[in-house]
Amino acid sequence: MKISVLGTYQTKFGELWNKSISDLLAESQLGAINDAQISVDDIDQIFTGNMCAGIFSNQSNLGGIAAQILNTNVASVVVQGACASGGLALCAGICAIESGQSQVVLVNGVEKMTDVGNGNVTKGLASAASYEWEQIHGATFPALNAMIAKLYMHTYGLTREELAMVSVKSHENGLKNELAHLRKKITVQDVINAPMIADPLTLLDCSPISDGAASIILCSENFAKKLNKKCVEIIGSGCASDTLLLAQRENLLEWKATQLAAKKAYEISGLTSDKIDVVELHDGFSIVQVLSIKDLGLGQHSVINPSGGLKSRGHPVGATGVAQAVEIVKQLQGRFNIGMTHNVGGCGTTVVVNIFKG
Amino acid sequence: MKISVLGTYQTKFGELWNKSISDLLAESQLGAINDAQISVDDIDQIFTGNMCAGIFSNQSNLGGIAAQILNTNVASVVVQGACASGGLALCAGICAIESGQSQVVLVNGVEKMTDVGNGNVTKGLASAASYEWEQIHGATFPALNAMIAKLYMHTYGLTREELAMVSVKSHENGLKNELAHLRKKITVQDVINAPMIADPLTLLDCSPISDGAASIILCSENFAKKLNKKCVEIIGSGCASDTLLLAQRENLLEWKATQLAAKKAYEISGLTSDKIDVVELHDGFSIVQVLSIKDLGLGQHSVINPSGGLKSRGHPVGATGVAQAVEIVKQLQGRFNIGMTHNVGGCGTTVVVNIFKG
Repeated sequence: MKISVLGTYQTKFGELWNKSISDLLAESQLGAINDAQISVDDIDQIFTGNMCAGIFSNQSNLGGIAAQILNTNVASVVVQGACASGGLALCAGICAIESGQSQVVLVNGVEKMTDVGNGNVTKGLASAASYEWEQIHGATFPALNAMIAKLYMHTYGLTREELAMVSVKSHENGLKNELAHLRKKITVQDVINAPMIADPLTLLDCSPISDGAASIILCSENFAKKLNKKCVEIIGSGCASDTLLLAQRENLLEWKATQLAAKKAYEISGLTSDKIDVVELHDGFSIVQVLSIKDLGLGQHSVINPSGGLKSRGHPVGATGVAQAVEIVKQLQGRFNIGMTHNVGGCGTTVVVNIFKG
Repeated sequence: MKISVLGTYQTKFGELWNKSISDLLAESQLGAINDAQISVDDIDQIFTGNMCAGIFSNQSNLGGIAAQILNTNVASVVVQGACASGGLALCAGICAIESGQSQVVLVNGVEKMTDVGNGNVTKGLASAASYEWEQIHGATFPALNAMIAKLYMHTYGLTREELAMVSVKSHENGLKNELAHLRKKITVQDVINAPMIADPLTLLDCSPISDGAASIILCSENFAKKLNKKCVEIIGSGCASDTLLLAQRENLLEWKATQLAAKKAYEISGLTSDKIDVVELHDGFSIVQVLSIKDLGLGQHSVINPSGGLKSRGHPVGATGVAQAVEIVKQLQGRFNIGMTHNVGGCGTTVVVNIFKG
């Protein structure tokens, strides 16, 4: 497969109290169109990844807003799968091009999480877990990840300090990213001494609650050829599911959906994991980075989360999967050749892996 | 295009207090698989249309639930576009087959609206309209449709009695549908004298608040050939958008998105509107049926909403677009040759039109 990337944009991630979800979407869409140097009329379809606009902003048709901003009448759809919503929107865009339905698609990810009408963000984020079997017993989303962290530490002897290093490294990278939410150097001791969220995870093991949007414009190989433009390409894509309910998993420490999505993306691209120079992986919690590196089969040589990842760049949930792609495209326009994105919804329930070539 | 329908299922629509959203999804998915006489392993992807599970059931990853029910690890995605969510899921399924990614897809639509934790259904339904410009001023979704009805009656001289006839006819059809929510004969006077919801629309001009699910299994022409099975086919499909905000429309009485989606579906199918024997159209409110018949270019000969439509069959919002397809497939297995579905999100913001051949 060969899907060309024509343009990208990411808004600043953070507590953007003066921006509504529509403002974020407008800035991001127009930014990507400007970067791609195409006209709105070139866009055949719009896909927007979003998790919680219904819960947070009482808005269940962002597709209409996305089309209205551009004054277009093309099909405009919201794709949802908890924190993997952005990655799933990317897959929907790829599918639209592969089907021949579209030559050019606009893919957005967006989430407005701060200063929203229905303010209980922890409850909203818990909607990534099972209402009937997990939320109802008081399990927050951090609590579910904390149980996995405990089990991992117990099983493999991972120390608290080693786990904390994940966040330290993410903040180091995020310092260099002007669009990141948290640009602050932290130490292992800072992580360990931060307020406890769900034992063993402290505040600094968890990605922050952010507002933000990201957009990417994809096109067919033919359309890119006509423009005579050298584009980063998506050369492999995989998506897989696992049970929503953690109690139904055989093994909590290996996420089958990550393994299967990666296997498919590797197969389609014809590459093996040792070819991945740079990866943006889904570190919603520090422990998820530890699990995911193994599940993706990555070795020491791959650069991980140069953007700062979810931990430092921020995690406006629906935006994350697209922001990862935006970052990888930038990295491949620079010094790297092959990149990967890894976007997770729930505790490994929905996973999207895409492989990019510079 | 030729997409074959392998199997369908619809749950009873109504106030199903003893069924959760997972229960509805389970019954519907298993029913369709049983009808299609395939195995779960044949299914390559799952698409689920849903509007409000986040708001009503604090559940933002129904895709995980859909996959978990079937004990499968294939990609499983939620597609959202207000009341057109089901129709959009159908389009996503068609796209997955057209792209060659999938041979067989399972498409669900589901909504649980009664007996839900966050009980303000009117507020949830208003999420189909703009939060920033419509909801905030107190405009409910019925109120927006009522303004359109007033304008239509004023402009074209449609009488209150003529408008009421739409609901009378729907209830007449729904009487024969065992799965319908409201199976009750009503008169023009019943409609006019029913409690006022938003002038001129009374309770009997509005579709009811229902629980329910529907599923359809689609496959490629090749897969259908291998099974040596005579299938109803989808031969045309169109999707279009208009502004979310009614204040930005040039004309409130013609829904451009319906016109454009229909135009595309007619073009792809190679058919004209006079060939449509039977249609399931989106009568969320009586006035929407009046508008839509014109926008779809339908004549007197087309049978409209044999199921009872949204008004009588019921309107579990995310399920509706798929239930329409299930009904049309059944009609084409009977006496009709060409059928159409018309699914609307918002006041004509997102419209999906599909054309089926028996």
